[in-house]
Amino acid sequence: MDYQRVFAQAIERLHAEGRYRVFIDILRNKGAFPNARCFAGHNGPKPITVWCSNDYLAMGQHPAVIAAMEEALHDVGAGSGGTRNIGGNTHYHVELEGELADLHGKEAALLFTSGYVSNEATLSTIAKILPGCIIFSDALNHASMIAGIRNSGCEKHVFRHNDVAHLEELLAAAPADAPKLIAFESVYSMDGDVAPIAEICDLADRYNALTYLDEVHAVGMYGARGGGISERDAVAHRLTIIEGTLGKAVGVMGGYIAADRNIVDVIRSYAPGFIFTTSLSPVLVAGALASVKHLKASSEEREAQQAAAAKLKGIFAEANLPTLPSTTHIVPLMIGDPVKAKRISDILLAEYGAYVQPINFPTVPRGTERLRFTPGPAHTEEMMRELADALVEIWDRLEMRLAA
Amino acid sequence: MDYQRVFAQAIERLHAEGRYRVFIDILRNKGAFPNARCFAGHNGPKPITVWCSNDYLAMGQHPAVIAAMEEALHDVGAGSGGTRNIGGNTHYHVELEGELADLHGKEAALLFTSGYVSNEATLSTIAKILPGCIIFSDALNHASMIAGIRNSGCEKHVFRHNDVAHLEELLAAAPADAPKLIAFESVYSMDGDVAPIAEICDLADRYNALTYLDEVHAVGMYGARGGGISERDAVAHRLTIIEGTLGKAVGVMGGYIAADRNIVDVIRSYAPGFIFTTSLSPVLVAGALASVKHLKASSEEREAQQAAAAKLKGIFAEANLPTLPSTTHIVPLMIGDPVKAKRISDILLAEYGAYVQPINFPTVPRGTERLRFTPGPAHTEEMMRELADALVEIWDRLEMRLAA
Repeated sequence: MDYQRVFAQAIERLHAEGRYRVFIDILRNKGAFPNARCFAGHNGPKPITVWCSNDYLAMGQHPAVIAAMEEALHDVGAGSGGTRNIGGNTHYHVELEGELADLHGKEAALLFTSGYVSNEATLSTIAKILPGCIIFSDALNHASMIAGIRNSGCEKHVFRHNDVAHLEELLAAAPADAPKLIAFESVYSMDGDVAPIAEICDLADRYNALTYLDEVHAVGMYGARGGGISERDAVAHRLTIIEGTLGKAVGVMGGYIAADRNIVDVIRSYAPGFIFTTSLSPVLVAGALASVKHLKASSEEREAQQAAAAKLKGIFAEANLPTLPSTTHIVPLMIGDPVKAKRISDILLAEYGAYVQPINFPTVPRGTERLRFTPGPAHTEEMMRELADALVEIWDRLEMRLAA
Repeated sequence: MDYQRVFAQAIERLHAEGRYRVFIDILRNKGAFPNARCFAGHNGPKPITVWCSNDYLAMGQHPAVIAAMEEALHDVGAGSGGTRNIGGNTHYHVELEGELADLHGKEAALLFTSGYVSNEATLSTIAKILPGCIIFSDALNHASMIAGIRNSGCEKHVFRHNDVAHLEELLAAAPADAPKLIAFESVYSMDGDVAPIAEICDLADRYNALTYLDEVHAVGMYGARGGGISERDAVAHRLTIIEGTLGKAVGVMGGYIAADRNIVDVIRSYAPGFIFTTSLSPVLVAGALASVKHLKASSEEREAQQAAAAKLKGIFAEANLPTLPSTTHIVPLMIGDPVKAKRISDILLAEYGAYVQPINFPTVPRGTERLRFTPGPAHTEEMMRELADALVEIWDRLEMRLAA
């Protein structure tokens, strides 16, 4: 067994497919986002504009968030020092869970170290509690939900993306008395489209299924208090479990679920991914708490983000750039080839100081490689026009065809 | 299907077994650790002494760590804003990975959001790269390693804890040409014993197996630079992958692996648990970087911890309290019953202001429930004598027998 050869071949396959990933080494400039410094392949840091951050509302630099983190850092120190059960349950954790439960109108909430872990741990634990559970999963669900479903060992049926007729077909074909769970997202982050939550809840009622909704790309950004699409559409009370993140619009790090008290207690008590891990640093929890509280009371950031997204979509459309029909804050530009997507991204960074990462397999299906822009409150119209001009120039240089 | 009944029964089972977990709600006092404030069941916060923290060296309150975090917070903001590939690769991450690779004498290192995720993601990904891989796993391996091995779908053989003869038997019985991986820990955190790393490496050489060593309860605390037991025993170069945490002796949060460049690149490129998650907050990474650098240069904290552990073991032995024969900084006191363990812990907290969490199933096997003390540089001899006196009084009150 020649291990080195196997590992080298695994890497070689990525290069051959043009999807070997190079991480761009940056430091963002607090107070001046989307500006950042880039360290790769330059003499000294070079200023760039970030177009692909999931710090969607720039809350990662909000004064209230920074102040709360600084205070916690000086009050209680750097880390929590243990699992939630063994010394790592700080008062910040308790408060934030209360705040998140309230945000989604649920009885309780539970923090995890990341959104990935919250999906994996919750979905994989459901099976242990509900023997024979059948999971119905949207075809475009995130890798962390897929991991949780696979690790649950449950029978799984994948329904076509956002296709409620197909979902109903699958539900109707399953045994009536089997426990059932429908797992889906509200905003799909690589396309920017939105699930028909109410219709899925109707089916859940009809077939006595539980529902699990991933709101990570919606929390903070939709609904009057930032409760996500389920708040905007007034359906939060119909969902069994709502999952969210503290690492995107909230601007910090971590994940959570909100549900009724018993379900939260079950996951808290049985999920290895929750039990056996050092809890979130109280510094992060304090920052997330300040951010969630702010976004409950203020719609200014949400409105500015929607305005920025509409503006960028308009400017790209004028320039005949091939955007996907997103109905949200996400602006995907279809390239359809991993080598070209990387090439365009490289030119944007090196020549125009614009940073947008190419999105390739396995994040999106092969042949749908794209650039994904996430304009926010801090991106100006001038930045957007410069970006569109740069893209048109690169399209021309690479002899690619524009839409019109 | 009555879901609520199933969930309620799952919780009821925990109560019936006396192992329903109640999280103690605390805030540690930076600069005064092991002192903390406890919020549960009191009028207002009450001062307590923490005896069960994994912030083993109190680095979570070290001025260099706090200063580095504060600087990063003000320089770049709260969160990273993305996955490592999409906007979340900060210069701090790059620097810390270099520092950790150096700490273990490896070519490269890779950060994860937690030690749990580093174990789960790395072990589960190995199978995808090495088809037919057989994993040999110590019987007392941590839940996160067990999760990774199970999720890998690999054939698994469990060898009796620290039993190299049994391990050799299993290796010899496996096909000679099959890829093999031996997964084990250096310090086992609930018993405080240490693996025979060199002997296990001998077997790995003989049977052409890769080795995976979890050093989470040793990094920072053993070896001249805090490289763990593998540094202390001068065997780091013989191990394929060393895994560690930033959430225990380093005092912050996060996990990592260190290995040769190709292996790290493979995990970086193929592990869903690494790829699809927001990267560690740069604030945490900056703190961990300062902490690792400090512990490389200073042995003061390590020596003070060893002295404190020896002192507490001596005081417990004098009092005939039933400690397990730990050879490390961990001081486990065997109770053998979940209800009694919780009762003793409750009395210690309520009447003596001493916080030590009961350790019950699934963290340890049923019937071996225990209290686990982790004295550190900041625990004084006076605190230790008070603690031992309290334990003796409680032993007497509960009509339990002391060892002598």
